[in-house]
Amino acid sequence: MLIVQKFGGTSVGSIDRMRNVAARCVATAREGHQVAVVVSAMSGETNRLLELTRQLQDDPNDREVDVIVSTGEQVSVGLVALAIRAAGGKARSFLGHQCKIVTDSAFSRARIVSIESQPIKDALAAGEIAVIAGFQGVDDKGSITTLGRGGSDTTGVAIAAALKADVCEIYTDVDGVYTTDPNVVPTARKIERISYEEMLELASLGAKVLQIRSVELGMKYGVPIHVRSSFSNAQGTWVVPEETAMENVVVSGVTVAKDEAKITCKDLPDTSGVAGKLFAPLADGGISVDMIVQNQASHGTTDLTFTVPRGDRKRAVEILCARVPELVGTGGERITFDDEIAKVSVVGVGMRSHAGVAKKMFQLLAGENINIQLISTSEIKISCVIARKYAELAVGALHEGFGLSLPPGERTGL
Amino acid sequence: MLIVQKFGGTSVGSIDRMRNVAARCVATAREGHQVAVVVSAMSGETNRLLELTRQLQDDPNDREVDVIVSTGEQVSVGLVALAIRAAGGKARSFLGHQCKIVTDSAFSRARIVSIESQPIKDALAAGEIAVIAGFQGVDDKGSITTLGRGGSDTTGVAIAAALKADVCEIYTDVDGVYTTDPNVVPTARKIERISYEEMLELASLGAKVLQIRSVELGMKYGVPIHVRSSFSNAQGTWVVPEETAMENVVVSGVTVAKDEAKITCKDLPDTSGVAGKLFAPLADGGISVDMIVQNQASHGTTDLTFTVPRGDRKRAVEILCARVPELVGTGGERITFDDEIAKVSVVGVGMRSHAGVAKKMFQLLAGENINIQLISTSEIKISCVIARKYAELAVGALHEGFGLSLPPGERTGL
Repeated sequence: MLIVQKFGGTSVGSIDRMRNVAARCVATAREGHQVAVVVSAMSGETNRLLELTRQLQDDPNDREVDVIVSTGEQVSVGLVALAIRAAGGKARSFLGHQCKIVTDSAFSRARIVSIESQPIKDALAAGEIAVIAGFQGVDDKGSITTLGRGGSDTTGVAIAAALKADVCEIYTDVDGVYTTDPNVVPTARKIERISYEEMLELASLGAKVLQIRSVELGMKYGVPIHVRSSFSNAQGTWVVPEETAMENVVVSGVTVAKDEAKITCKDLPDTSGVAGKLFAPLADGGISVDMIVQNQASHGTTDLTFTVPRGDRKRAVEILCARVPELVGTGGERITFDDEIAKVSVVGVGMRSHAGVAKKMFQLLAGENINIQLISTSEIKISCVIARKYAELAVGALHEGFGLSLPPGERTGL
Repeated sequence: MLIVQKFGGTSVGSIDRMRNVAARCVATAREGHQVAVVVSAMSGETNRLLELTRQLQDDPNDREVDVIVSTGEQVSVGLVALAIRAAGGKARSFLGHQCKIVTDSAFSRARIVSIESQPIKDALAAGEIAVIAGFQGVDDKGSITTLGRGGSDTTGVAIAAALKADVCEIYTDVDGVYTTDPNVVPTARKIERISYEEMLELASLGAKVLQIRSVELGMKYGVPIHVRSSFSNAQGTWVVPEETAMENVVVSGVTVAKDEAKITCKDLPDTSGVAGKLFAPLADGGISVDMIVQNQASHGTTDLTFTVPRGDRKRAVEILCARVPELVGTGGERITFDDEIAKVSVVGVGMRSHAGVAKKMFQLLAGENINIQLISTSEIKISCVIARKYAELAVGALHEGFGLSLPPGERTGL
């Protein structure tokens, strides 16, 4: 098999941990597999480098910042290659411009355009373990770029796609993807297999174990992703194309996100184009709006509520205060906001074929006397905004109510 | 003018010092010059990175070690480019593989083969200050290489040669090249102009202000080198092609080297080929031999004395002990050594046209009752090995005796 193994900053956080990584790579190679390893910077290193740049300027979206920050991964690949050799293996390091991982020129948040993977294939064919720098690439002018936080996951899956690898193993400090955060709900269970679509929803809704773009890439190129612990050999969670058996699991996971705020614009004129005029300036300001709900009020006016990242809430209100008077003319409009919210979600591909999930979710929340402020749904998820103080209570009730503390086969229907 | 400015590790040792470097670069550019800057790693960084590699292996001549160590300069160029922009200038960083500085594949001690300088020329033509990573290059397979300690001087002069720059300014923590070490002889004088040949001898003989290969490159391509202080605007020392006036100065400088040891092989057979058989195994062992003196002894035997770097002395004696019995057959040979030596030298292109320099040197040392153990001469220098405890005494006597504490015009003849 051809196996890509990706190790995060904690897994390569010291020379001793690099020796562990090297031992795993060499063991995998000795089982007869071809191995490509993708590594992050040693934990803390990227922040240290960014701090140096901040003493000279604030803008992180800069060609020179990427030159500096990318050295974190460069040091890691060299050291891991040395560690593999010390462990008796053959190894060769590859930087983004050597692999060659071509990206666009959006410094600090570049997207991969193509991978010219022949140099890696040559190394693998020569029996070497290819040690590849995560997080970095090179644009068409030869400038170094970086992919943004968590970009090493994306590098791992992209390299796996380019090499047509049998699996991309993502090693992390947890042993897989859970039905919900085990720190909040002790009965949370490790998920054995999950579809890309579900994983995407979970990652978007607050689960931090995998970077969203890496899941998108995995789905696009059909790369099986195995999320597992760097501290054990136990099987973790496989993220794979949807399988028939998955539909029997109505709800796969429960997530909570606490980093949003809610904004309500009351008494808007109930005419077409109002929403567009409201959200255009927010988009221009680079503020991404998540859930949007519009309610018709009395007297030909309407209320519009939406959520934004909490860090952007103040600026969003300022932008709207400057724009809303234009929209509604004289008087009556009011903007209110609430920072103390949480978004709880249930996710599962089984929802497509099982009615009643929403009803059961609302009942479970009502059973705990939790008021639902906003609702949004997709084909495979339902999200409810509630008061933040009830977040843990809600997650526990949903996790228990949908039977997620039981093995998938033992869960009862809705 | 087109000016190359090279700053060492101390000059870029902190963000504040980088601001000073940036201010100087921007000021030079504002005077209407085109500016290319070559920078070293922040002081201490290269050693920190090497220490990381030593935890995994001992051999520094390794592809992966160069991948790791070269990040020191990579961080520096990014930060200096940001500092130049913060100071109001335009800047763009260049790594070895972007410049493009092509070297051979001798990792950790690579030699520059060629510089494809068009990217730098393009940046300069666009009004940007080019900030170039010293010490690093790329081989023909795209692997990162480093030039060895002091390699940033070499990068500076090589870039100046490639760009046909008007001057390569080497900024350092001293304000020029002195007639001898001012810490040893307080009357030492800054030299205003010195020839490449003299500078080469001074650098070879213990003066640490410039890396030898950078002087060789400067001589080969006729690049004027200006050694000056990064803490002032004072003129430093110009290293230039030999000028007629220089011949009037009989002795330009006095140096001392204390890092060698002396080995004597006694009672060798006085036949041809003996020296070759002796030095071949040392060369094979990578030990560079400096001064060699052979004296015919009585009874058809000969004594041979030479110096090696003190760190190699033990190994050199071991190699010889294993080989000398073969050369001399049974008995009689003896190897002795002395680690407590120093080599004092006087250097000057004026020696070519002035006889009596050696005589005067020997008289000055004899006047201090210093015994001369070995003598070696070239066209423009005379070196004497003496007991190390007399090193400072000898340097002071020679500096005073040859009138170096006086301005060149006021020095009397021999």
